[in-house]
Amino acid sequence: MSEIIVMKELLGENSRIAEENREIYKKDSVFMVNIMGAPGAGKTTLIKALCDELRSRNVDSAVIEGDLYSTIDADKFNDNGVKSVEINTCGECHLDAAVIKSGYDSLGFRNGVVFIENVGNLICPAEFDLGESLKVVCASVPEGDDKPFKYVPMFSYVDAVALTKCDLKEAVGFDISNFRKGMEAVNEAPVFETSLKKGTSSDPGVKALVDHILEKRA
Amino acid sequence: MSEIIVMKELLGENSRIAEENREIYKKDSVFMVNIMGAPGAGKTTLIKALCDELRSRNVDSAVIEGDLYSTIDADKFNDNGVKSVEINTCGECHLDAAVIKSGYDSLGFRNGVVFIENVGNLICPAEFDLGESLKVVCASVPEGDDKPFKYVPMFSYVDAVALTKCDLKEAVGFDISNFRKGMEAVNEAPVFETSLKKGTSSDPGVKALVDHILEKRA
Repeated sequence: MSEIIVMKELLGENSRIAEENREIYKKDSVFMVNIMGAPGAGKTTLIKALCDELRSRNVDSAVIEGDLYSTIDADKFNDNGVKSVEINTCGECHLDAAVIKSGYDSLGFRNGVVFIENVGNLICPAEFDLGESLKVVCASVPEGDDKPFKYVPMFSYVDAVALTKCDLKEAVGFDISNFRKGMEAVNEAPVFETSLKKGTSSDPGVKALVDHILEKRA
Repeated sequence: MSEIIVMKELLGENSRIAEENREIYKKDSVFMVNIMGAPGAGKTTLIKALCDELRSRNVDSAVIEGDLYSTIDADKFNDNGVKSVEINTCGECHLDAAVIKSGYDSLGFRNGVVFIENVGNLICPAEFDLGESLKVVCASVPEGDDKPFKYVPMFSYVDAVALTKCDLKEAVGFDISNFRKGMEAVNEAPVFETSLKKGTSSDPGVKALVDHILEKRA
């Protein structure tokens, strides 16, 4: 019983901070995109491709990078010339509005798109509003076409789906119609199919997702 | 602060029930194997293959199946003639000792191996002792070779690793030496390489993992 009460208090406090965040981002002309997904879904690779595509359209971007302990992913962005900050959750399974607030403050970024790379987890992050403008789940083809049926809270909560590693569809026997059927049962969010195998550039799914982000931002 | 206190109370109570479970399994000659892993890592397919291999060695097995909401995975076992019970966590991100106790009671199984398929999550399940005899993480090749570096609590907590979907190594550029380096940094647990593409039978990694399970059980 006490667990439920504490959880309600935590989520209430989180929502209050998330609302403050939303006001700050609006004032700073920042469009915040929360990218969630399972471990190894390809979140980092997707965000790098989105940052490159935005740059080609003269839109600035930055990254708030959530990791359990390491700095592996944040290093990748800094190497790529994209401003990023690392939030080390020390084992916590999700990011919350308060840590995002502190990450955003140290980023010192204005006028553009900020991507949050959430912790690799298809369950817990769905419960925490971060004050973001757009929630995207990154689901990879090798995870299987039944995931929207099985991880209902996450898939029903998001504004868009980035389906990654589509070049592996045949190799793993992925049935896109079953995936879309699962999505349509819980959500009307659009699905963007991407394939970002090493060496690939100008992916049509990434371009379409950037179109979608800029349309929502307008 | 209250979150920490409640968490400590929860884990204390969980450990107490886990100890009771351990005594019951011992009395019932049941060897309990907790299979954890990310969404889509291939836990269900692995467990099915392990049950088949055990059957070919005249060892009975059964499954306690954890799912957020659906019964998709439990149905697969019942279709396959393996006794299984479904634990529906109603959105909870892990299984705990109390729900396993109730699942085990309704299974009514003695003398053999019981597999717990934990909820698809590479973070939270690592904190909860279920009273199991062996903890196995199922990590899939498409998730990437950096996972032991990034999900340290899980990889340092387990007794064995089943590396799944090894037929995709080349397609995704998976570096097994980097994966093993990450493992060796945190744990001495053995790594079993498996490949259970549709139509595959008698996988050497599955056979070796069953050898390992039966050795630990002896």
